[in-house]
Order: sequence, then C-alpha cells, then structure tokens
Amino acid sequence: MTGTLGIKAEFLTSKHKRDIERIALANHLKIHYFTDEADLDALIGQCEILYGYIPPEKLRAAESLRWLACASSGVEQYLGEYLYANPGVILTNSAGAYGITISEHIVMTLLMLLRRMPEYNAVTAAHQWESLGRIRSIYGSVITVIGTGDIGTAFAQRAKALGAAHIRGVHRSNRVLPRCFDESYAVEDLDFALAGADAVIMCVPGTKETENLMTRERLGLLKKTSVLINVGRGSSLDQDALMDALNSGKIAGAALDVTTPEPLPADHPLWNTKNLILTPHVSGNMTLDITCDLDVNLFFDNLTRYCRKQPMKHIVERSVGY
Amino acid sequence: MTGTLGIKAEFLTSKHKRDIERIALANHLKIHYFTDEADLDALIGQCEILYGYIPPEKLRAAESLRWLACASSGVEQYLGEYLYANPGVILTNSAGAYGITISEHIVMTLLMLLRRMPEYNAVTAAHQWESLGRIRSIYGSVITVIGTGDIGTAFAQRAKALGAAHIRGVHRSNRVLPRCFDESYAVEDLDFALAGADAVIMCVPGTKETENLMTRERLGLLKKTSVLINVGRGSSLDQDALMDALNSGKIAGAALDVTTPEPLPADHPLWNTKNLILTPHVSGNMTLDITCDLDVNLFFDNLTRYCRKQPMKHIVERSVGY
Repeated sequence: MTGTLGIKAEFLTSKHKRDIERIALANHLKIHYFTDEADLDALIGQCEILYGYIPPEKLRAAESLRWLACASSGVEQYLGEYLYANPGVILTNSAGAYGITISEHIVMTLLMLLRRMPEYNAVTAAHQWESLGRIRSIYGSVITVIGTGDIGTAFAQRAKALGAAHIRGVHRSNRVLPRCFDESYAVEDLDFALAGADAVIMCVPGTKETENLMTRERLGLLKKTSVLINVGRGSSLDQDALMDALNSGKIAGAALDVTTPEPLPADHPLWNTKNLILTPHVSGNMTLDITCDLDVNLFFDNLTRYCRKQPMKHIVERSVGY
Repeated sequence: MTGTLGIKAEFLTSKHKRDIERIALANHLKIHYFTDEADLDALIGQCEILYGYIPPEKLRAAESLRWLACASSGVEQYLGEYLYANPGVILTNSAGAYGITISEHIVMTLLMLLRRMPEYNAVTAAHQWESLGRIRSIYGSVITVIGTGDIGTAFAQRAKALGAAHIRGVHRSNRVLPRCFDESYAVEDLDFALAGADAVIMCVPGTKETENLMTRERLGLLKKTSVLINVGRGSSLDQDALMDALNSGKIAGAALDVTTPEPLPADHPLWNTKNLILTPHVSGNMTLDITCDLDVNLFFDNLTRYCRKQPMKHIVERSVGY
C-alpha cells in the first residue's frame, strides 16, 4: 500500500498522532495533516483515506478516496452519493465515542429539571434565599429512552445505578436490549412507551425515519409532570409543539442540546420558552479528553482492519443514514 | 403507656398519619398534631414524645418529654442541655433519610461544574450559540468525599457507577468503608486525601470538630482544576478563603448549599463570587416524596422500639453533636 492518509482533526494529541503514525508507517501509508483550506484543496485529491472533520463540499475533489472516517456520530451531511467523486467509498462514523459524555449531559439536565434548577438559578440571581417546595428524583422514576445505541445504553446504565424504577428502551429493530433496560418497545409502539413516563430521553440519529418522530400528538400523551430531553437531532421533534407544551405547562420541562435550525437565531422564540434548558449542541463534542481518546481508538482499530483487509466496524449504510 | 405524642411535621401524608396512628393506638399513646404556635404552647407540656420540627426555644415547656425525634439530620440547635426541662431526654435524628436526595444534588452540581453549566447559562441567556471548549467528566476522576455516612456513601456509590476512577473516603473513626470507596483516610490525614483530587465533596455535620475543617491552607492544597461541593454545614469551611480561591481562579469552581450565615444577606459577596453555584439549603429538605417516606419510616421504626423498650436507632450523643 502506498496511499495517503489525510487528517483534519484538531483534537489530536501528540500521543494520538504517534499511535496513528506507527500503524501508518508499518503499512506504507503517508500521513498528511491538513493545515488550512488551501492545503486541503491542494492535497485532498491524493488521499486514499480521510479522517476527521472534512467539509462535505470538498469530497468531489477526493478522486483517490476509498474510505472516509468521520469523527462524529451523526453523519447526515455525508449521505448523498453525489458528494463523492467515486462510487463505493466506505463511510464510517464514530458511534461509540460519545456514550460517556452525552450520558453525563443527560443525567445532569435530567436532575436539573427534576430539582428545578432553572427556577433556583432565577432565585439566587435575585439574591433570594428561599425554598421553592417540591422537587422530584431519578430514584423511583419511569424513564423512556428512545434510541438504544451507545448513548441510550450508557444513559440507561447510569439511570439504573441512580435508582430509576423502570427504564423503557425504544428501538428500530427487534432485538434483546442490555439488562439496564426493563422493557423493550419497537418504535411502532412508541405511544405505549410514552404513557406514564416521568422522563423521555431522545437520542436518535437524524434520518428520514426519525423525522418528526415526536409529533404534537405524541407530546400530548405525556404527563403534566413529564420532562423531555433531546440530545439526538432537532429534526426528530415538533419544536413548535414542544414550545406550546412548555409555555402552557402541559409538560414540566425540557432540555434541548439540538434544535431546528442550528445555530439558533438570536430572535428565535425557543430562547424564551418556559422551563427549557438550552445548550448549543455541546453535549457530545470533542471537549472531553475521554471522547477524543475513544474516537482515536475507533479510528485506530478500523485503520488496522483496513490495512489488513479485515471487516471494518461502524460502516454507515448511506441509504439508511447510520 | 398513656402519654401523648405531639407532632409538628407538615410533610406527613394521610398514609403516613394512618401508619403512625396504628402503632400509637396499639400502645395507648394519644396523638396530637400541632396546628399553630398557640396550640403548641398549650399542649407541649403534656407530650412524652415530640416528632418533627419543634422550635428549640419551646422545649423548656415540655415538662413530660422523654424523647425528641427530629425530622432533620443536622441537630446542632438541639444539643444544649439547658434547652430541656428534664435531663436525660432522648434525642434522635433522621440520619439516613437524606442519602438519595442529597447525593442527587451532589451529582447534579458536580456535573454542572465539570461541564461548565454556569458559563453556558450565561451564553444562552445572551442568545448565543457557541461552544466554550474543554469540559471534564466524572468518568475517570479522583473524588475525595469528606464524611462517609449515609450521604457520603450514597454519593460515592453513584459516582462509582458513573465511572469515577478513584474515590477517597475521609472519616472520623477508624473503620472499614463500603466497597464504593477505594481508599480510607482518617480526618487527621485530610491533607493527603486532598492532594490531586479532581473534586472534593463535604458532607459533615456541624460540630465543634468539623468547624473550619476546610481551612485556607487546605484549600491551597487543591489543584487549579479542582471543584468543591459543600452540602453539610457552612461552618466547616473558611468561606472567605473559598471566595478568594474562586475569584482568583486558584480552583475551578464550587457549589454551596450551606453558607455562613443562613439565610445569606442580599448584599453578601458570596452571591457574586466567580464559578460558584449557590442553592438556598435545599439539597435535602422535605421536598422529595422519598425523603418524607424514609423519614417517617425511621420514626415509625423507632416508635415501635420505644414502645417495646428495645434499643432505639439514630440516638444523638449531645456532647458529640451527632
């Protein structure tokens, strides 16, 4: 093999680079770290493998490309066959790197909603010292997790350890879920999985199948005390219906790390929605050391497999979307 | 037995009351629920047992009192022998009722500090959509828990389930700690337990022994990236030194649910301290159903023991303070 591996991944440490270089060297692969856009334009045509965050519109110029290894889990912008110069380019994602960081985000925002932290932030901002009364707990709660991949499972394990009474997993294909899930629902039975839930956690990818999965009607099935958290993609939720449900008190609260559109315009009504915790799509990016380590490990494992012509992991079916 | 049980506990549900009344009836105890201060003044003198939140200054009038069952865990205001009309009144607390709610508060504030939520709250309040960069995780962290009773242990179990790498327990007496603690330190060796800790969790009662336990010098042992959480009593911490450490960036953040004094005056500099999450002593009060249930269960168990003249639980040594 004498191809070139092009890398655009600012989060790599020198140790990460040494590890990648070691295997590349052993397999006669040249490595090039793109420095800027001009550099990328000049050299992308030589690359057999691309790793990291490659702008989709640059892929047409990657005439030698055989494998695109995305550092993200969601890859909706890389699905169109027209993006690629050649057919049959292998696309892999980093599913599995984000379980720890996103599940910690979910635990944090869920506790903030149940313990009324947005309201307490307002109380302390006014320098007041008062109890707001009743709060709620993860302990003993019924939680519906939509999407039972790496992220949903990592969260379900944590919620179980925190004493959740009952965790329902909602998934696309019939399969046996890990033990941290108490019940298993096919997505067709989502309505049943929502009934009576104290919390609904959405961690599904942005695909045609998940578009508007949480409709206005389904939001109407939730309890007045229910809270909803979305860390997947904004497209899977009827955002207007959620704003209505929150502003009218039909549900107790929500936390969104993903919205429609992103970035959210400064004058969007979502910013001023009641009992809503907003974060700017940061639950799972490369800001946590362990996420970067896991991501590099996934790439390193796949690079070894690629060089040895063994079956690779985390290959995305472009027609399905993940 | 023909004494009176006086109860001042607004959080009791009708089911709680039925349970208490059942055992009281079987033991020929009369029950009186105090309705207001005049009612309390009129009837406290008849009470053999008092349960709930009894104002300390009223105890002098409780001439028949043999057992005071406090619904709180911290009982520093009930320790003075001069408060009581008779010597030898048994004082019990509700240690054990608060583990779930306070440990959830600690997990929440710890994640908020590690994931920079106070800063993200400011970003979203300004309707901005931007990543602040690096965050940190409970996963893989070193956590020092000062106070290894019900609350400290409940938190350590949760932190371990969330992937903490190493949990150090600091305690008063030599004993074997539960398995969720990786290391055991006597309080005399606190300095060693603080070195290198990513997070320090303080959950000790307010006693002479714990006063100013976290001195300015000890705060100086923490790392620039360390965070500190106090859910015990404000008196165990040099609050001025903590404000200095936070405002100068010598430590990364703190969360205080207890302060000196309480309530905190509106013009106190603590309100405007950098990277500090303040809550108004609400991590463990009777706002969570499960806390109320546990509290009533503890009282119910002790009431049974009292009536049967069996050894009671959670008796406070007034000279020690818990």
